[in-house]
Amino acid sequence: MTIRIAVDAMGGNGPKVTVAACLDILKTHPDIQINLFGDEASIKSQAATFPDTLNIFHADESILDEDTVATALKQKKQSSMRLALNSVKEGVSDCCVSAGNTGVLMAMSRYVLKMLPGVSRPAICAVLPTMDTKKHIRMLDLGANVEASSDVLLQFAVIGSRLSELVDGIGKPKVALLNIGEEHHKGNDTIKHAAHLLKEHPLINYVGFVEPNYIFKGDVDVVVCDGLLGNVALKSIEGTSKLIKSYLKNAFTANLLTKVIALIATPVLNRIAKDMSTSSRNGASLVGLNATVIKSHGGANRKGFAQAIKNAYHEAIRSIPEQVKSGLKTEE
Amino acid sequence: MTIRIAVDAMGGNGPKVTVAACLDILKTHPDIQINLFGDEASIKSQAATFPDTLNIFHADESILDEDTVATALKQKKQSSMRLALNSVKEGVSDCCVSAGNTGVLMAMSRYVLKMLPGVSRPAICAVLPTMDTKKHIRMLDLGANVEASSDVLLQFAVIGSRLSELVDGIGKPKVALLNIGEEHHKGNDTIKHAAHLLKEHPLINYVGFVEPNYIFKGDVDVVVCDGLLGNVALKSIEGTSKLIKSYLKNAFTANLLTKVIALIATPVLNRIAKDMSTSSRNGASLVGLNATVIKSHGGANRKGFAQAIKNAYHEAIRSIPEQVKSGLKTEE
Repeated sequence: MTIRIAVDAMGGNGPKVTVAACLDILKTHPDIQINLFGDEASIKSQAATFPDTLNIFHADESILDEDTVATALKQKKQSSMRLALNSVKEGVSDCCVSAGNTGVLMAMSRYVLKMLPGVSRPAICAVLPTMDTKKHIRMLDLGANVEASSDVLLQFAVIGSRLSELVDGIGKPKVALLNIGEEHHKGNDTIKHAAHLLKEHPLINYVGFVEPNYIFKGDVDVVVCDGLLGNVALKSIEGTSKLIKSYLKNAFTANLLTKVIALIATPVLNRIAKDMSTSSRNGASLVGLNATVIKSHGGANRKGFAQAIKNAYHEAIRSIPEQVKSGLKTEE
Repeated sequence: MTIRIAVDAMGGNGPKVTVAACLDILKTHPDIQINLFGDEASIKSQAATFPDTLNIFHADESILDEDTVATALKQKKQSSMRLALNSVKEGVSDCCVSAGNTGVLMAMSRYVLKMLPGVSRPAICAVLPTMDTKKHIRMLDLGANVEASSDVLLQFAVIGSRLSELVDGIGKPKVALLNIGEEHHKGNDTIKHAAHLLKEHPLINYVGFVEPNYIFKGDVDVVVCDGLLGNVALKSIEGTSKLIKSYLKNAFTANLLTKVIALIATPVLNRIAKDMSTSSRNGASLVGLNATVIKSHGGANRKGFAQAIKNAYHEAIRSIPEQVKSGLKTEE
């Protein structure tokens, strides 16, 4: 079975990164075909030859960071992102990857691919590291919805649980709700009511509230929250990582002695850099849609973007959107 | 002028830490008098002699982590925390420090000391580090209120701004609202309306929204948010710090070679540990009350608890609660 992946070549760092990542992936995955959308000349200038498993589709325009959802939907029907999504809708591709404008990708995916029956809102789902470097957790929503009702949080829980089961291979994934305390009286009414719904749901192994400082212990598999809390948590994590990286850099470059120590410590510093690297976790899933759409970080490098393509492959080969349907009530 | 500080000896790590910290402070601050509340025998067992500037007040009971607000208020009127707060109310002490149960300290402070006129809700305010190790920012509310209206966020902004001015010595402190994007259309209605109120307020130098990943750049002085977002941000920061500490530890203790490298790198590692240490920033202010109350982290060590006492001293000597009054509309 060949998985056909529609890739938006123009998002994030553009063809220089995206094309290189596609070529890397095709070398190691003979069962992947990539349909690459973007400026043909820019794409072709990235390599002397392209494999047969890569098809280039020219797009006249691309989505910019400053584009609003409204203008992008109305005026950019020939953009690389839109054409990539269209190809999934038309059955030419199985899934889509883009490093472009998150809000636009979200809205365009929803408009073109539509939501799964029973899912009212899309969510952004990504994996986060834990203290155990072999284990990660899944968290959603990381920013698609500023607000989410208890019912919507329940939908997110079902989707996250299925992803954990099917993609990560975890049996009966432990699902927790993000909250500022573990006690049942903590949090707002929406979170408290969602706890009740999750507890009652037959397909969810609900384990209770989890505080953001305990996420990384890895005791749970799926963390559910609205997009406001999720995005604040995610960006706080990012900011803290950068802060500590700056501490490390300052400490090791303070003077000649510390620079010599840095040289000696190179193997250790490399390992720390590897542990802290986000490339190996790049590629968030836009979930709740009828097909797999993966959002790469805009600043992702070649390795990071390749990881996003791999994520699309892993979700598409398992038909995740089809599979999550079963846990959701259909709107009748 | 002598500042009289009521210290709850029994909170957090108890007399072993709190008494040692008090003795440290009194050695370097002849203008401080400490009124220490707790189990007299436990306190006295911590040192052979006590200076004249330390008065011990016996308390039969203490607040436990598992105590609820209701039981603590009704049944623990002789607890060390309650007696410490009473001494502020009675004018025997100028301010109070405790490492005990946050929820109980908040409620008890509110009950005993009452809110400033024009302030409807208390908030937790603490300082956070930035990339510039010489600069910190102030953030509130870090968890006292799960929800906060735009008006309450405005009160927090005024209080935070005054603290930044008076305690940190910053002229026209830059005040930002925590949000998941910088664009004016981002966030929920409460945040958007608060932005409007802050922009109009004559005493606030409002600079816009700030995302959690940019807090540490140090471009702003005060970050305002409700307690749910603030607590999620704070705990995400804490969790990430612990995660990266575990990476560092694993990398430097992986094998004999890395352990030798760790030895060589000791001076650098000490500097990193110092940069990452939270002791020098321990002690959050419970703001909006008629007197200064400082909450120390429950796990604070001797140095950390001493810092919390210093914070109380700095706020009390500047009569911060009196000073913040001026920026607030009084309820008439």
